[in-house]
Parts: sequence; C-alpha cells; structure tokens
Amino acid sequence: MDITLSENQYNLVYNSLSFVIASMGAALLFFLLVRNRVAPQHRMAVTLSTLVVGIALYHYVRIFGSWNDAFSYTNRKFVQDGRPFNEGYRYVDWLLTVPLLLAELVVVLKLAKVKTRSLLVRLSIAAVAMIALGYPGEIAASDSSARTIWAVASTVPFLYILFVLFVELGRSLDRQSDGVRKLLDVLRYIILATWGVYPVAYMLPSLMDNQANAEVARQVMYSLGDVLAKPLFGLLVLAIALAKSREDGYVEAGLVGAGSSDHA
Amino acid sequence: MDITLSENQYNLVYNSLSFVIASMGAALLFFLLVRNRVAPQHRMAVTLSTLVVGIALYHYVRIFGSWNDAFSYTNRKFVQDGRPFNEGYRYVDWLLTVPLLLAELVVVLKLAKVKTRSLLVRLSIAAVAMIALGYPGEIAASDSSARTIWAVASTVPFLYILFVLFVELGRSLDRQSDGVRKLLDVLRYIILATWGVYPVAYMLPSLMDNQANAEVARQVMYSLGDVLAKPLFGLLVLAIALAKSREDGYVEAGLVGAGSSDHA
Repeated sequence: MDITLSENQYNLVYNSLSFVIASMGAALLFFLLVRNRVAPQHRMAVTLSTLVVGIALYHYVRIFGSWNDAFSYTNRKFVQDGRPFNEGYRYVDWLLTVPLLLAELVVVLKLAKVKTRSLLVRLSIAAVAMIALGYPGEIAASDSSARTIWAVASTVPFLYILFVLFVELGRSLDRQSDGVRKLLDVLRYIILATWGVYPVAYMLPSLMDNQANAEVARQVMYSLGDVLAKPLFGLLVLAIALAKSREDGYVEAGLVGAGSSDHA
Repeated sequence: MDITLSENQYNLVYNSLSFVIASMGAALLFFLLVRNRVAPQHRMAVTLSTLVVGIALYHYVRIFGSWNDAFSYTNRKFVQDGRPFNEGYRYVDWLLTVPLLLAELVVVLKLAKVKTRSLLVRLSIAAVAMIALGYPGEIAASDSSARTIWAVASTVPFLYILFVLFVELGRSLDRQSDGVRKLLDVLRYIILATWGVYPVAYMLPSLMDNQANAEVARQVMYSLGDVLAKPLFGLLVLAIALAKSREDGYVEAGLVGAGSSDHA
C-alpha cells in the first residue's frame, strides 16, 4: 500500500504534524508557567496535563521524522518508498496519554478518595483496552475485514468510558459548584466530539477508494484530534482547577499587596 | 519557479533566518528570566509573549532547515533543486502567534472581563481569517491574479483588526494611567508599521521581474517583520506590565532590602 502524493498532499500532512509539534510545545510551556496560579490542592490535574502534552510533543517529533523518512521526492511527487511510516508512535502515545487525560478529569473533581480510585482504575483499564484493540485493525490491510472487526472490538471499551463519564460521573457532581459543573459539561462534550474524530480517521482507508487521499485525510484528522483532545482539553481542566482555587479563596503569593492597594 | 541565487543572495537569507533564531531564543530566555519582576496579576501577558517567541523559535529552526535543504551548491551558485522550500511554516506560525500577540495586547490592559472576552474572540477570528485567506495567494504562481485576489480578501480582516485596535479600543482606555496609555500608543503604531511589512513582502513576487531578487527580499522582509512584531512587541507589552505592577505597588520578593539601602 505504498502511495504517491502530490506536493500539496504531502505538505498538508507535513505542516499538520509540524503544527501539532508547535501546539504541544506551546501548551507544555504554558502549563509550566501558569501552575503557580492554581492552588496546591488542585495542581495535580495541571501536572497531568503537562505530562500529556510533553509525551505528545515527543511522539509528534518522531512521527514527523518518520513521515519525512518514508517518502522520497522525485519528479515533483512524493513517493512512499522509504522505511515504512511508523503508525505505532500514535498508539504508544495514546497508551500513555489517554489514561492520563481521563485521570486529569477525575483528579480535578476531587471526589471522595474511594470513588476517585475506583474511577481511575476502571477508566485506565478501559482506555488501555480501547487502544490495544484498535491497533491490530490500524495496521491491517485497508480492504481486510480485520479492520472492521478490531474497530468494533475497540468500540466496546470506548462506550464504557462514555457511560462512566456521562452517566456514572453525572451522579457524583453534587459537591461541585455551578461554575465548575458548567465547565465540566463542556469538557465531556469535547471528549465526545474530539474522540469521535478518531474512529472516522481510523475507518477512512476502508471507506475511501483513493488510498493517497485517505492517508492524507487520516493523518490530518488524527493530528487535529490530538490538538483538541490534549492542549484544548488541558486548558479546560486548567480552567476548572483555577475556578476551584478561587472558590477555595486561594491567592497567588505576591497578589496580597496588590489586592490591598486596590482598597487604598 | 525554481531559482538560482548568488552566494551573497543565498547567504543574506540564510543569515537573516539565523538572526531571527538568535533573536527569538534570546527573547524566550529574557521573558522567562524577568517574569518575576512583574506582579502576578499582570504576568499573563508576559506568559503569552513567551509562548509567541517560543513558537517562532521552533518555526525558524524548521524554516532554516527547509531553506538549507531546498538548494544545492554548484559552480559557486545556489540552485533550488532540492525538496520544495516550505512556505507553510510561516503560516502555521502566524496561525498560532498572531492571535496570541493580539491577546497579549488585550490581556495586559486588564479591561472588564466581558469586554476582554469579546475582544479576544473577535480579534482571534479576524487573525485566523486574515492568515488563512493569505495562504492560497502565497503559494499561487507569481504571475497569477489569484495572488492579488487572496491578498485583497486577507486585507479585509486586517482592516477590521486595525479598526478594533485604534477606534474601539481607544474608547476603553479611561482606566489606564497616562504612562500606560503612552506605551500603548507606541505599541499600536508598531503593529501598524511592522504588519505593514508583510503585505509588501507578500506582493513582491508579483511586483518584481527578477524572481531571485524577489524571493531574497521577501524572506528578509518576513524575517525582519517577525523580529519587530514578536520580540520587540513583547518588550513593549512587558514595559506596560511593569508600569502597571509599579502602579499597583508591587515589590518583587528580595527587592525590599535593596529599596531600603537606597535611603541609607
């Protein structure tokens, strides 16, 4: 399934991958610089966001290099005749980052300890199952039924995660303020919307006849999905952590003098 | 539109790109080192400046590499016969940094929350529209009318941004001190002057007959524009944040002793 891409097709993927590198790097810097604005008791969720974008930054540098090495440039076309493009980086990334993303969401809520532990264990197992079951289909031939079978298998833990987030978690939000609950709603719908991008991208090689177009669309969609699911998701978790810090009356060191001068 | 450059022409671009890498790296380090001099409530603008020069640093390292890979050196000439020079890096960079630059300006003013949010949303949409509409013209053939058409389309959101900054924002500055208002005037004229460099650079391939000269002038102007619009702009935002910190009576931890020794 080696493909030939036009300059524009190749560059679209190339620039999408580079865009993700820049976004992850910027998010990493941002989460590191603003963590002191969050009260210490709510900082763990921001720490997890920082790990997620750091891990993704590393993997996108690798994916970018692998994409580059997979093609040669001849007669103004990019021909995929080099080392195989390594789709495995994405799955290793997700294996690490998806449990961490779900943990961000659980940790920032500060539920009872027993509840938190139970949610973390079940969501992590489901996330690992979802990704491990997806991989054999990802590397299967585009016209094989294996692709569809593994996709269906991978959907089962995905639906379980949605059940936990929307039904089970919905019942334990009575301790959260209205502001936090609103942000949390946005967060869950972002999970629904952005995680919905992945299965579509996954199935494209089976749905589209032109394998070059399918590959370009797939890489661009995965890249876009990762920017929404990691930096944007992390920003919303940060917003919840900041709202909770304010509710707890947290004032960043150095702000006290400024506050009192307002009353002068 | 492959071109052949003299050693001097090639080196002028090469050294301009390297100059930008050094400038962005120095600015990144500087903004990180001085952030504690700014009161926490005014630090977000400096954080955004830091992200801007960090993102630009990444992209200029890539642009530098792409410029290098695009040319081979034969008979004391540089011939553009390698992988196509990737103009996309600049546009991906601007897509991320221009909304952040405008956000720096809005955030440092500390206007009312509703006003801030409204300005951020409108300016970001206009910035993304301006850059997205510019790209198709940038990669169009130098003698095509597409270049001019997209340039005009891109100018519409650009004029809207200027209207917001000069007319609308001018009306909400009554809460700012005289010192801050003066710095803000400089800042807005820097936007006007430096952002004016970009459209000229953009149109050069259509305006100049010699495509080698046009490409050299274009790359040098874009590079110069980015140094003015990012590190220099960031320094002015920092000056405003520092002025506001002083007005709020902020004293950096450790400076108290220094202050009292002045009276000794």
